[in-house]
Formats: sequence, structure tokens, C-alpha cells
Amino acid sequence: MARPTSQSTPTRPPSLGVGGPRSEHTRQTILDAARSAFATRGYEQTTIRAVAADAGIDASMVMRYYGSKAGLFAAAATIDLDPPELASVPARRRGEALVRHFVGRWERDPSEDMLGFLLRTAVTTDSVADQMQATFDRMIVGTLTALEYPDAQRRAALIGSQLLGLGLCRYILRLEPLASLSVDQVVAGIGPTIQRYLTAPLSPA
Amino acid sequence: MARPTSQSTPTRPPSLGVGGPRSEHTRQTILDAARSAFATRGYEQTTIRAVAADAGIDASMVMRYYGSKAGLFAAAATIDLDPPELASVPARRRGEALVRHFVGRWERDPSEDMLGFLLRTAVTTDSVADQMQATFDRMIVGTLTALEYPDAQRRAALIGSQLLGLGLCRYILRLEPLASLSVDQVVAGIGPTIQRYLTAPLSPA
Repeated sequence: MARPTSQSTPTRPPSLGVGGPRSEHTRQTILDAARSAFATRGYEQTTIRAVAADAGIDASMVMRYYGSKAGLFAAAATIDLDPPELASVPARRRGEALVRHFVGRWERDPSEDMLGFLLRTAVTTDSVADQMQATFDRMIVGTLTALEYPDAQRRAALIGSQLLGLGLCRYILRLEPLASLSVDQVVAGIGPTIQRYLTAPLSPA
Repeated sequence: MARPTSQSTPTRPPSLGVGGPRSEHTRQTILDAARSAFATRGYEQTTIRAVAADAGIDASMVMRYYGSKAGLFAAAATIDLDPPELASVPARRRGEALVRHFVGRWERDPSEDMLGFLLRTAVTTDSVADQMQATFDRMIVGTLTALEYPDAQRRAALIGSQLLGLGLCRYILRLEPLASLSVDQVVAGIGPTIQRYLTAPLSPA
């Protein structure tokens, strides 16, 4: 997983200090093996040991990077969900940019259906739901914090509820007419919502 | 299922013409038996025949009302999700009212967790997803149509993506801080989104 703004968040898994290009290559090798294993064998039947063997490294290294099978799964399933570089987008267009980024990722290779795989597993496996939150925090909270949005946690939670709901309804449940809208229509409909969650005043905590 | 505004929608199941108080009582008896059966035995292990036996009526009557096991499941799982009577709410406060209504229902009896049960089954069973859409259409599209909102289908789809995403993140995945916000905070955060989906101009179809 790329980790643009995540290094200072408290939810980062126990891999601090293992950085650099070589480490990144190992990470990627593990994730590739994990995605293949989870997709073929499913969550329950996949073991850390088997993923490590496929990746040609020691199982202890997989644990060092990802902490647990649930952590590895969440990372493998969300590898394509890294947020866009919002810093270069004008502040008033960031909501739209976030929607377009996620929809673009989800549509790019629907055959892999990693979003569906992640959600299906998360709704039935608590540890995966926990890891999904940690991964999500790194993605969205980290991005908002880096851009100095106040109340990043709450804004990210509202943004997540809309984006995951969109993913659920459009790509997994395939509810109509949402599933048939063009990307531009989805961005026009939902972009202003995300913009509001980025910038609107929040009620007192 | 109560059906305040649903009788004229095209997605209504094949039960038109079976109305009146006696029919409503039969419906409720079937749904009670179905909820109990699905909750105890799960979706796959529950049969129309067993539900009919529990309800003390003929299986053909269950089919007449609900069409299929998936239809029966969607109705049983969404029985508490009937929309509020929006007609009596000022137009500018209907978004807030919709959020408060759904959150209120979901919080009223979390031990039953019918939303979680429905979503868990829908993400793994296509026929349930289809029936969930039909039920949802009757609830939200029917309500918006009755109040003469234009583009009711698209507005309902956007509303559904936010409300189901909220249900998913707050009650099933229990993502923080969303899971710990008060109902008032949720309504303040998400109400304006639903209001916008009700009234904002939509991009061309």
C-alpha cells in the first residue's frame, strides 16, 4: 500500500521504521500474493504462512508489516483505494475530485471486485471491519489532516458513510438507477455532498 | 409490511387486490413467522413451507403475498423501515426528518439487527439484493412520487446510497467516530445531504 500521508497517524500498523524502496518492494510482493490467495481461497481458508510462502519470504516478515491476517486482508483489499493528491486540487473542487477518484478506481477493473470482496468480508468478520477502519483512517483522515482540515475524524467519517454507501449500492447491490448513471452523473450528484462534508460547519461535539 | 404510499408503484409484488384489514393481519402473521425463522435458521436454511407452517397458513398464500423466498426475506427484514409521513413535514425539513426516522428505527431495537441481517444477506445473495431494491423503491420512491418530487427514482437512489452507507458504517461496521455520534449529531451532519438530494437540480439524464 502506498502511504502518502499516513506515517504520523496513530492507527498505522506496527511497521514504523521499516521504510525505504526495498521495504516498499517487499510490501508490494506480499500484497500481490495476498490478493491472489484471498481471491482464490477466500478469507477463512487463507493463512499468513501460505501467503508468505507464495511471496517467497518468511511469515514473520508478513506479521511485521501487517500485524495479523485481518490487517493483511484490509491492506490487500484496499490497495487501490489510496486517496488522490488533493493538495493540487482547488479547495472548492476537492469533494468532486474525491468522488471521481474513488469511482474511477472502482470502475477501472471491476473484475477484481476488491471493494465487494472487502465489504462482504467486513460485514461478516469483525476483525476485518476493524482493519478496514484503520486502513480508511490512513487514507482519508490522513489526507484531511495533511491539508489541515479541522475535525478531520468526523469529516472523514461522514465522507466514508457516503462513499461506502455509493460503493455498496452501485457496485455490490447494483441498485438502479444508481448502477446505470454515468460517472459524470455520479460525480455531479455526490460531489457536492463530499464538498459539504469537507467544509461545512459541524454541530458541537 | 405497512404500505402507505406503495400501492400504485410498478414494483409492488403480486399481491394487488388482496387488501383490507384481514389481509393486513395475515401479512403481519407471515412476517412475524418469517423474521423468527430467518433469525434462527439463517437465509439459506429457511423455507417458505416452514414459515407457512409456523404462521398456520398455506404455503401458497405466502407465495401469493411475497412472490419468493427472497421477496419474503426483504419484506421481513425491512418491515420497520417504512418511511415517515413526510407530507406533514415542512418541505425544507424533510431531509432531516428522513434521517431521524431511519436512525430512530435502527436504534430502537438494535438487538434484532435486521438491517445488518438484510445487508449481510444482500451482499452475498443476488436475489435478496433485487428484492431489497423492490422494497426500497416502494418505500422511498413511492413517498417521493406521492409528494410530487420530480426525478423521484434518481433522488431516491442518491438518498439510499447515503442512508444505507450510514447504516453500514454506523451499525454494522461500527466505524468510529460515526458509531459514537449522538442521533442529533448524525441528523445535523447528514440531514442537509438528504435535503439536497430531495431538492437540488440534477444533471441531465
